[in-house]
Amino acid sequence: MPDAAAGDAGLAAQIAAADKTSVAAALNLIEDRRPDAQARIARLLSALSLRPGVHRVGITGPPGVGKSTLTSALAAELRRRQRTVGVLAVDPTSQRSGGALLGDRARMDFDPSDQGLFVRSLATAGALGGLTHAANAVIAVLSSAYDRVLVETVGVGQSETEVEHAVDTVCLVVQPGSGDVLQFIKAGVMEIPDLLVVNKGDQHALAQQAATDLAVALSALRRVGIDGAPSAGPRWKVPVLVTSARDRTGLEALADALEAHLHNLGTTALAARRRAAASRWALSVLQRRYGEHAIEVLGGEATLRALIAEALDRGSPPPTVASDLGQSYLERLRDPA
Amino acid sequence: MPDAAAGDAGLAAQIAAADKTSVAAALNLIEDRRPDAQARIARLLSALSLRPGVHRVGITGPPGVGKSTLTSALAAELRRRQRTVGVLAVDPTSQRSGGALLGDRARMDFDPSDQGLFVRSLATAGALGGLTHAANAVIAVLSSAYDRVLVETVGVGQSETEVEHAVDTVCLVVQPGSGDVLQFIKAGVMEIPDLLVVNKGDQHALAQQAATDLAVALSALRRVGIDGAPSAGPRWKVPVLVTSARDRTGLEALADALEAHLHNLGTTALAARRRAAASRWALSVLQRRYGEHAIEVLGGEATLRALIAEALDRGSPPPTVASDLGQSYLERLRDPA
Repeated sequence: MPDAAAGDAGLAAQIAAADKTSVAAALNLIEDRRPDAQARIARLLSALSLRPGVHRVGITGPPGVGKSTLTSALAAELRRRQRTVGVLAVDPTSQRSGGALLGDRARMDFDPSDQGLFVRSLATAGALGGLTHAANAVIAVLSSAYDRVLVETVGVGQSETEVEHAVDTVCLVVQPGSGDVLQFIKAGVMEIPDLLVVNKGDQHALAQQAATDLAVALSALRRVGIDGAPSAGPRWKVPVLVTSARDRTGLEALADALEAHLHNLGTTALAARRRAAASRWALSVLQRRYGEHAIEVLGGEATLRALIAEALDRGSPPPTVASDLGQSYLERLRDPA
Repeated sequence: MPDAAAGDAGLAAQIAAADKTSVAAALNLIEDRRPDAQARIARLLSALSLRPGVHRVGITGPPGVGKSTLTSALAAELRRRQRTVGVLAVDPTSQRSGGALLGDRARMDFDPSDQGLFVRSLATAGALGGLTHAANAVIAVLSSAYDRVLVETVGVGQSETEVEHAVDTVCLVVQPGSGDVLQFIKAGVMEIPDLLVVNKGDQHALAQQAATDLAVALSALRRVGIDGAPSAGPRWKVPVLVTSARDRTGLEALADALEAHLHNLGTTALAARRRAAASRWALSVLQRRYGEHAIEVLGGEATLRALIAEALDRGSPPPTVASDLGQSYLERLRDPA
């Protein structure tokens, strides 16, 4: 369908120009579950390019730590710095209430007339596996349109959504008094973040205690050699920041720390992270669609990762790579050579 | 292999006699990833039967709320009541540290010489999909050996592990001051629990505030008609309890509330929950192994659920049902009629 392809290329161009209506149209397409929508998304993703200098930041942490308020305040700080901002809130919403019970408006405070700011939430709505794919696609769209992309996820460090892995910088938010160091380690949260934020700094003494606990835990982990995130830039020491989203304190320091992490990553580590994220996305789509059996039949995970890397290098977007590999799998099943 | 089958039947008999060594051997088998272990597990599961009157309780909640201490204290209370107790702690452990950094000993306080108490933790170790299967199998083993099975999981209500769904009663643990009612709803935690526990009741004022918040939220949800868990017994009003695992207060009330929930469920609702759990387990194993494509090829989820129900009624354990359906899928692919 050359017309449709041209239409998707046009949509991609309008997204790159940060046209809010086009961004919204693309996101609606991503949430459309019909098969022809999937083909259009694949074409759209092929036509999209990363905005030069874009920085994707994940804001993750357990529920109740004030991630939404912090994300909102950080977005405002970035807008003050003349950055355009796209926000994706991934919401493990109640299946039964369908997410409609209470909207984002109650939690986030945004100016809808600001053309440089786009906010969308994505509910799991019972499709946990599908969320990874949808979130990755939304992040790709926002990364084409805006200077800074903020992805808010509920997680204890290792979310099933793996959305954390789709961003350049992972920022873990905790609250003061939320437990001792042992609990942070127990929850497996210590391995992922590039930045640690103790939010609700208005509870000053508690926040300082939590920051101290975290610094101690980080130092303990460093001793056993598991500090830092995979392919972190050289000599990155995870900063522990104290913020109060409500009182709007600590946000400049947070924005500065995010810039510092981006700068510290440098082009090589940043490219490596993004390649790894694209590969993970492709593998996750394949596994969700055809299961572990497909991975075995196609030669195991190591072989597959190499195949995926080759296909990505040829410029195919991850869902297309997954779809092509799925066809190979089915052919092998039908005609085992 | 009649000898192996006889051996597994013997193991099942020893498990039913609550022989600790046999229970441990079965759990080791479940964690064994070799293909022949899978066949043995399937045979073992066929040979196992539920202990009469067994009650499986899930203790879930975000990290840092003191679930481990509470589980330990609850187990002690149940032992005081002459119940034998099996505990499974599902741990979203750091992939990198492999869970070996800090063991359960730091968190749980158990008497290893007590023959009526068995404790095992299960780490995700990077295999999120596999965890559901392993946890379900461990719960089946413990449910044959002990009067009460406590399953501790980290979750924000909708864990990817779906371990919550494998138990008869879900107990959600929160901490005082962990955020307002809106946050509980946002995290999607309000739809699942049968009991709500505000732990760390030593922070008395905060715990009372949290209990009040939760009661308000429950009442708000009831108004929009989404209170209670699926197939709850008649007229079950979710109790909000305050405990302090450290000070050992509120544990008798918790144990009483658990008994009350079991009694309220009654045999019909309990059987319905257990059938639903077995069906979910089979579907999850099938999906993990062969993906969504298998579900489509086999006629869609509704058709599959009916097929699964039939097979379960014939006495096949869920992994066997999944494995048989997987074979049908592969046959249809190879020879599309």
